[in-house]
Amino acid sequence: MIERLAIIGVGLIGGSLARALREAGAVGEVVGCGRALPNLERAVEIGVIDRYDQDPASAVAGADMVFVAVPLGAMRGVFNAIKDRLRPDAIFTDGGSVKGSVVADALAAFGRTPPRLVPGHPIAGTERSGVDASFATLYQNRRVILTPLPETDPDAVARVESMWRTCGAEVSQMSVAHHDEVLAATSHLPHMLAYGLVDALARMDETDEIFRYAAGGFRDFTRIASSSPVMWRDICIANREALSAVLGRFSVELTDLAQAIRLGDGNYLLEVFERAKAARDRNVEGAVDGRTKESP
Amino acid sequence: MIERLAIIGVGLIGGSLARALREAGAVGEVVGCGRALPNLERAVEIGVIDRYDQDPASAVAGADMVFVAVPLGAMRGVFNAIKDRLRPDAIFTDGGSVKGSVVADALAAFGRTPPRLVPGHPIAGTERSGVDASFATLYQNRRVILTPLPETDPDAVARVESMWRTCGAEVSQMSVAHHDEVLAATSHLPHMLAYGLVDALARMDETDEIFRYAAGGFRDFTRIASSSPVMWRDICIANREALSAVLGRFSVELTDLAQAIRLGDGNYLLEVFERAKAARDRNVEGAVDGRTKESP
Repeated sequence: MIERLAIIGVGLIGGSLARALREAGAVGEVVGCGRALPNLERAVEIGVIDRYDQDPASAVAGADMVFVAVPLGAMRGVFNAIKDRLRPDAIFTDGGSVKGSVVADALAAFGRTPPRLVPGHPIAGTERSGVDASFATLYQNRRVILTPLPETDPDAVARVESMWRTCGAEVSQMSVAHHDEVLAATSHLPHMLAYGLVDALARMDETDEIFRYAAGGFRDFTRIASSSPVMWRDICIANREALSAVLGRFSVELTDLAQAIRLGDGNYLLEVFERAKAARDRNVEGAVDGRTKESP
Repeated sequence: MIERLAIIGVGLIGGSLARALREAGAVGEVVGCGRALPNLERAVEIGVIDRYDQDPASAVAGADMVFVAVPLGAMRGVFNAIKDRLRPDAIFTDGGSVKGSVVADALAAFGRTPPRLVPGHPIAGTERSGVDASFATLYQNRRVILTPLPETDPDAVARVESMWRTCGAEVSQMSVAHHDEVLAATSHLPHMLAYGLVDALARMDETDEIFRYAAGGFRDFTRIASSSPVMWRDICIANREALSAVLGRFSVELTDLAQAIRLGDGNYLLEVFERAKAARDRNVEGAVDGRTKESP
């Protein structure tokens, strides 16, 4: 049971955590904090939080659990603002999509790795943002990755793990570096490809005529290009090393494919496509569901 | 009204055309042709076709409308097989995803551009294949592109257009070259990126552990990598010129993005992401639907 939960950043991620914990009866009071006053007022109105305080330091005062769900570029400022006002026994965790930068921000703000900070990443979301987009079941059957450090208090890890389990999530642990490599490959790189593709087409055809002939496959493929540009700029900068490495690998793959196409090397193409289809069908849930359209 | 429709290739595309025309009462007899006998027997059993003939020449005999829905690599062989047995007034059209290669195949088989061939491309499909995957509403509100040539009989074009409208499709016309460029950009390139991404990840991580942390955005992004490898090999070879050109443009886009990430150039990234998001939100139906998950 959490007595007082402070949520810094009451949007889709923070709001959904509050909703889920409330529905489970696992939280007493919820205090929200954020920069947009109308969003906070709305959050009180729809019952996601009990009250708000726009000053992070006052918002965390007295909280036994703090969840920081702000864009990566704002993490360090929040850590600096709250560091002297956290209850000594308060546990705090975050929802950042890159863990190396969050850990570095905490080190910079606190002067050491705070033992009661449990870096975390709920792998969930939609293209929408703001508290109105939040919902209690967002984390059900979703993965949450925690990346505790050697200095992290095991009791704090256990409590954060339990909080996410209460929301229906499947929690796993890995190192900061491994998290950032895995997410670079499975999330950050795909977003770069989707943004890059849509931008390349938009630049090719200023009249947008080309998009008229895009079918369902294109819609699915590029859905992630509707995500928040500011959030993704921050993620790219925060994870630039791991993302650059995986972009390099992908570029080699693409160069090889392009060469096979130019040369008409059908055997090479078939080999790549079969290996990819097999990996996807084997690993990605709902791979062949027959509902979604493609556009050959 | 079509008196006798011959469908060469009774799969998702051919089967769905037959079902839609039957439901609309717009066809008399439907004769199927294909290489897999069990699929043809199944097509009769579930009422998609009235009868079948595994010899294309016999299958088209007496038909006033012929629909060739075979992989691009099989087009020329079908044209060669049927050329001497088509009724003189028979109209024939196809469902190939590349039009330049189909027109070249027809020229090679007939020795000239047949005036009653109307090259076409229904932009619809799912990852599934075979007659069991076909359904009558596949073409509803989908686009069908016809690419008639100067030699093409306008009456044949009008009849094919009317056939597709009966199925609920929106029909448009463009040149062969423009079709192949547009589809290279909006369909063939995205498929290359999805296949290439999944293959690159599978090669990076032979244990497939990496896929465990892929969320909804990845599932949507890579859905098209579950498509038929043989079909896509054929498409790449058939459209290699236009696809190579658009792959080249995309490579430049990706190189610029990779450099901005390496240099930490947030302004450049924000500019690209905002332009892409705006283009997608403006052009792609259902861009922000809140239902589908991404994985930041």
